[in-house]
Amino acid sequence: MLEGLMQDEALTVQSLLRRMRTVGASGEVATLQADGSLERCSYGEVAERVDRLCRGLSMLGVQPGDRVATLAWNNQAHLEAYLAAPSMGAVLHTLNLRLHPDQLAYIIDHAEDAVILVDESLVPMLAAIAPRLTCAPKFVVVGVEDGTLPGAWSYDDLLAAADSPFEYPDVEERQASGLCYTSGTTGNPKGVLYSHRSTYLHAMAACTADALGVSGRDRILPIVPMFHANAWGIPYAAAMAGADLVLPGPHLQADRIAALIEGERVTIAGAVPTIWMDLLRYADAHRPDLSSLRLVPCGGAAVPRSLMEAFEERHGVRIVQAWGMTETSPLGAVAHPPRGAEGEDYWRAKTMAGRICAGVEARLIDGDGREAAWDGVATGELEVRGPWVAAAYYRDPAPDKFHDGWLRTGDVAAIDATGYIRLTDRAKDVIKSGGEWISSVDLENELMAYPGVAEAAVIARPDDRWTERPLACVVAEPGAELAADGLAAHLASRVSRWWVPEEYVFLDEVPKTSVGKFDKKLLRARLSEGDLDEPQIVDRSELPPDRYPSPRASA
Amino acid sequence: MLEGLMQDEALTVQSLLRRMRTVGASGEVATLQADGSLERCSYGEVAERVDRLCRGLSMLGVQPGDRVATLAWNNQAHLEAYLAAPSMGAVLHTLNLRLHPDQLAYIIDHAEDAVILVDESLVPMLAAIAPRLTCAPKFVVVGVEDGTLPGAWSYDDLLAAADSPFEYPDVEERQASGLCYTSGTTGNPKGVLYSHRSTYLHAMAACTADALGVSGRDRILPIVPMFHANAWGIPYAAAMAGADLVLPGPHLQADRIAALIEGERVTIAGAVPTIWMDLLRYADAHRPDLSSLRLVPCGGAAVPRSLMEAFEERHGVRIVQAWGMTETSPLGAVAHPPRGAEGEDYWRAKTMAGRICAGVEARLIDGDGREAAWDGVATGELEVRGPWVAAAYYRDPAPDKFHDGWLRTGDVAAIDATGYIRLTDRAKDVIKSGGEWISSVDLENELMAYPGVAEAAVIARPDDRWTERPLACVVAEPGAELAADGLAAHLASRVSRWWVPEEYVFLDEVPKTSVGKFDKKLLRARLSEGDLDEPQIVDRSELPPDRYPSPRASA
Repeated sequence: MLEGLMQDEALTVQSLLRRMRTVGASGEVATLQADGSLERCSYGEVAERVDRLCRGLSMLGVQPGDRVATLAWNNQAHLEAYLAAPSMGAVLHTLNLRLHPDQLAYIIDHAEDAVILVDESLVPMLAAIAPRLTCAPKFVVVGVEDGTLPGAWSYDDLLAAADSPFEYPDVEERQASGLCYTSGTTGNPKGVLYSHRSTYLHAMAACTADALGVSGRDRILPIVPMFHANAWGIPYAAAMAGADLVLPGPHLQADRIAALIEGERVTIAGAVPTIWMDLLRYADAHRPDLSSLRLVPCGGAAVPRSLMEAFEERHGVRIVQAWGMTETSPLGAVAHPPRGAEGEDYWRAKTMAGRICAGVEARLIDGDGREAAWDGVATGELEVRGPWVAAAYYRDPAPDKFHDGWLRTGDVAAIDATGYIRLTDRAKDVIKSGGEWISSVDLENELMAYPGVAEAAVIARPDDRWTERPLACVVAEPGAELAADGLAAHLASRVSRWWVPEEYVFLDEVPKTSVGKFDKKLLRARLSEGDLDEPQIVDRSELPPDRYPSPRASA
Repeated sequence: MLEGLMQDEALTVQSLLRRMRTVGASGEVATLQADGSLERCSYGEVAERVDRLCRGLSMLGVQPGDRVATLAWNNQAHLEAYLAAPSMGAVLHTLNLRLHPDQLAYIIDHAEDAVILVDESLVPMLAAIAPRLTCAPKFVVVGVEDGTLPGAWSYDDLLAAADSPFEYPDVEERQASGLCYTSGTTGNPKGVLYSHRSTYLHAMAACTADALGVSGRDRILPIVPMFHANAWGIPYAAAMAGADLVLPGPHLQADRIAALIEGERVTIAGAVPTIWMDLLRYADAHRPDLSSLRLVPCGGAAVPRSLMEAFEERHGVRIVQAWGMTETSPLGAVAHPPRGAEGEDYWRAKTMAGRICAGVEARLIDGDGREAAWDGVATGELEVRGPWVAAAYYRDPAPDKFHDGWLRTGDVAAIDATGYIRLTDRAKDVIKSGGEWISSVDLENELMAYPGVAEAAVIARPDDRWTERPLACVVAEPGAELAADGLAAHLASRVSRWWVPEEYVFLDEVPKTSVGKFDKKLLRARLSEGDLDEPQIVDRSELPPDRYPSPRASA
C-alpha cells in the first residue's frame, strides 16, 4: 500500500479544547440564572477552568478510561465537563435526569462511574439513590454543597484547589470519549460509547451547511438537554466553530426561552417539538422579537407541519426537522428543502424526517430481509452506518440491534430518490413523548402486576403538546372492577410520574397476532379509526408526587 | 485503553462516490463547450461512468498505488478521474498545464505516472514531451484521438470497452489518494501525496459554514483549475454534499464566466483575484445578473480591498478571501468577517488572509525560533498542522519545510487574538502571478546564464491584473551592453512565456546581505519607495511564441 504523506493528527476532543483556547478564545458561554440574569464566561476562560477541572478530577483519582458522570442541566459547568473528561482521557457519561430512579441507579452501576458531577438542584434526586449504588462514585456538587451527599466536594472548591498545571495525556482517536444510555428499547437501558473520532467527526458534521451549519458567527441556544443525545452535538460543534452558547439551565418555560432568544440575539435554537409548541403559543400572545433566529433544528419526534407553518408565517422562524438517535451521535438526517423548492414541494421536504447527512449511509430492509428501493414508496426497517454510528452497546450485547455492520434503527421508513427519509411506522413498540422514550413494555408489565388486570397493552396516542402520550388498553379479570384512577396511582408508585398514562381504555380482549403476541399495530389502527371505546381520563393532579424532583416541573 | 464502540467506517473517496450514487444521484455536472452550450450529466450517471473508468484503467494495467495523471481543464471527464483513480486504490495525479515542459516532464517521470488522461486540446503539449519521458505512461485522450500520442486510447472508447462490472478493492484511510506538485519553492517541484483521510476531511471542512459552506443546494463554478491545489477541494466537497458543478473547461474569459453565472444560477464561484478583476470590468460594462452568487471565495494571492468593495457595492457580490497552499489541501483560513462586523471592522477582517479553519492549527515562529504572540502585531513564519496538512514531500526530502511536525508555510504573518491571519512578508523569494508561483531563483539563474549579465535578482512588483509580476534587476558585466528585449527573448526560450518579466531595471550592483546573499528585501523596499530607476519595458507581442499551447490564451 502506498501511504499518503499527510500529518497524522488525531481527531480528538483535545483538539476542540485547543481550538477554544486559541482561535475560539473570544467565544462566550452565557448561562441563565434563576433571577433571569446571565453568567458569562469566555471560551478562553472556560479552557483554563477545564485545565483545573482535569487536575481536580485527577486529584479525585480519575484515571484514563474512567467514567465521569454528570447529572446536570445545560450550564457552564456541564460544558466544562464535556471538554474536561474526554481531554484527560476519561469518559463523559451524561445521566438522563428524566429516568426513573431505578434506571438511574442501574445505569450508574452499570457504567461504574468514578465521579458524578451533580447540579445543586438535582442533589435530592441523586441522594435518593446514592445509598444503594454499588460502584461508590465520588460526588462533586455544582453550587452549594450542603453535606447531603456523603463526602461530596463543591465544584468551585475543587477548581480552586486544582491550581497546578495539568499535563494532558496522549489520547488516541478511537479511545472512548463519551457514554450515553438510551432507554428506547425494551430491557435495560443500553450505553452508547462514543470515541474521540466519532465525537470530532460528528461535531464537524454539525458544522456543515447541510446539517446545522454551525459557524463562528452563531449564538446557539441548546434547549435540548446536554444529558439527551449530547444535546445533538451542539456543545462540541460550538467548541469547534467558536460559536457562542446560551444555556438555559433548568429554565425551559416559554417566557424564559423567548426572553433568551430576544435578549441574546440567538441564531440557532434546538429543541423537541413540545417546546416549540409552547413557544408558539407564547409568541402569538406576546410577540417577542425572534428575528435573530436563522435556524431552528427540531427533532426527537415528528414535527407537525402546522407548527412549522405557523412559525414561518407568523414569526418568520424557519424550523427544520432532523432525525437521529443516541446511537447516531445523533445527527442522521436533516430536512433542509432542496434548492428552489416552493409550495407543496417545499412542505413535502420539510415534513420528511430529513435528508441523509453526508457521512451517514442508509438502507431499508424489508420483511424478507431484502433491500427496498429508494422510490419514496417501498418501506423497510431503516438501517444506518457511518463513523459516528454505534457498532455495539457498552457491556451489553444486543445483537438484534446490529446487522452486518449496520445499526438497526427500529424505525420503518421510505426513502426517496434524493435521500429524504419518511418514517412510516416503528419496528418496536415505543412511545416518544416530549422527545423522550417511554417503554410501553415496562408500562404493560407494571399494569399487569396490578390486581384484577388480565391483560394490558400500551400504545402511543397522538398528543398536541407532547407529540405522543401512552394510552393504556386494559382487560380486567372476570369479575374484577378496574378504574383508571387506581391504575394510574399504582403506576405512579412504580415508574416516573411523566410516564403515567392519562387515558385508559377498557377492552374485552387485547387483539393478538398469529403467534399470540399483542397486536399493537391493530390497536393503533383502531385508535386512529376511532374504533376504540372512549377512554377514562385521569386527573393528573390527583397523582401522588414524584419521589424526586420532577424534570417536567421546569419544562 | 477503553476503546469507543463506534463503527469503524473508513474516511475514503469511495464513500464520496457512494454518496454520488445514492443521496446525491440527482446532482448535476454541466461542462461548458466551445460553442457555449453545456453538456450535462447527473451524478448518478457520473458514478456509473466512474465504474467504467475504473474498469478501463484496470484494463490498461493500473494497479492500486499506481499514479493516474490528468492533464486537463475543468470538465466532466476530469471529475470522473477525480473519483475513479482513488476509488480503485490508485492515485490521482493532477498535472499543472501552466508549467514549463521541462518541469512537466520532470514531474511525470518523478511520479512515474502509469497513465495520463489528457484533454484533446492539450495533446500537443503532451506530445512535445512524450518522447523524452522515461516512465512510459499510457495515454488516454478525452475527445478526438488522432494518433498524435503513441498507442493512445480515446476516453470514450475506453469507457465503452469497459462494460463489465468493477469490483472496488478495499481501500484504507491512510492510503494515498492524490498527488499534486508544487513549484513554489526553489529546486525541483515537490509532490504532495494526499491520503483518502485527508481528502475526505478536507471535503468535510469545505462543507462547514466557516469555510465554503458547500451544501446540496449549491451550484458551484470552480474557475480555479482542477490541476491547481485540487480546485480548492471543490470537486470532492460537491460530491460529498451533492452540490451541482458548473465546469468552464478552458473558457475562462470574463464574458464566458459571466454568462455561466447568469445562465446556470451559480451560487459559489471560486477563482484567483486576476479572474475577478477581469470579471469586474466586464460586469461594470455589461451588467450581467450575478444575483445568484452567495459566496465568491478568492485566494491564491492577496485580494485587493478595492476589488471586494467594487463587487459588493456595484454588484452585490460578496468576495471572501481564503488562504492555503497545495501542502494544505489547500483550505487553511477563510476571511469571513465576525458576526455583526460593520464598517472598518468588517473590512479589517475581509482584508486578512483569513481566519484559521477548524481542524487546522497555526503558530508563528520568530527569527529566534520562539513562538510569537497572537496580538495582531508580532510576526513570525506561519507554521500549520492538521489532518489535511502535508507531513513530507513525495520521494523528495525537504526537511527545511517541516519543523517538529508542523509545515513551514514560507509566509511571514501576524495573527490576532481571534485567529485572523495577516500576511506581512514572504520567507522565501517567490512571486505569485495570477495565482500561480513563479520562481525568482529560476529566472535569476537563466538571466545570469545570458552573456554579459554579471548579476540578476528578480523580485515581485505589484500588478493590477496579475497581483504580482516579476521585475528583473540586472547588473551588466563591465563593458557589456544589455537591453531588455534581448533578455526577454532569451528567457522566453528557457521558461514558460508567462514567466518572462515585462520590466527590467539595470543596476550597478545588487545589494547584498551581511552573508553576501542578494538582499531582495532591500530591493523590494527600494521598489516600493520609488528608489529604483525606471525600468525598460518589453513589448510582449515581440516575444517568440510558446513552444506549446499557452494556458494563458484562454485566461
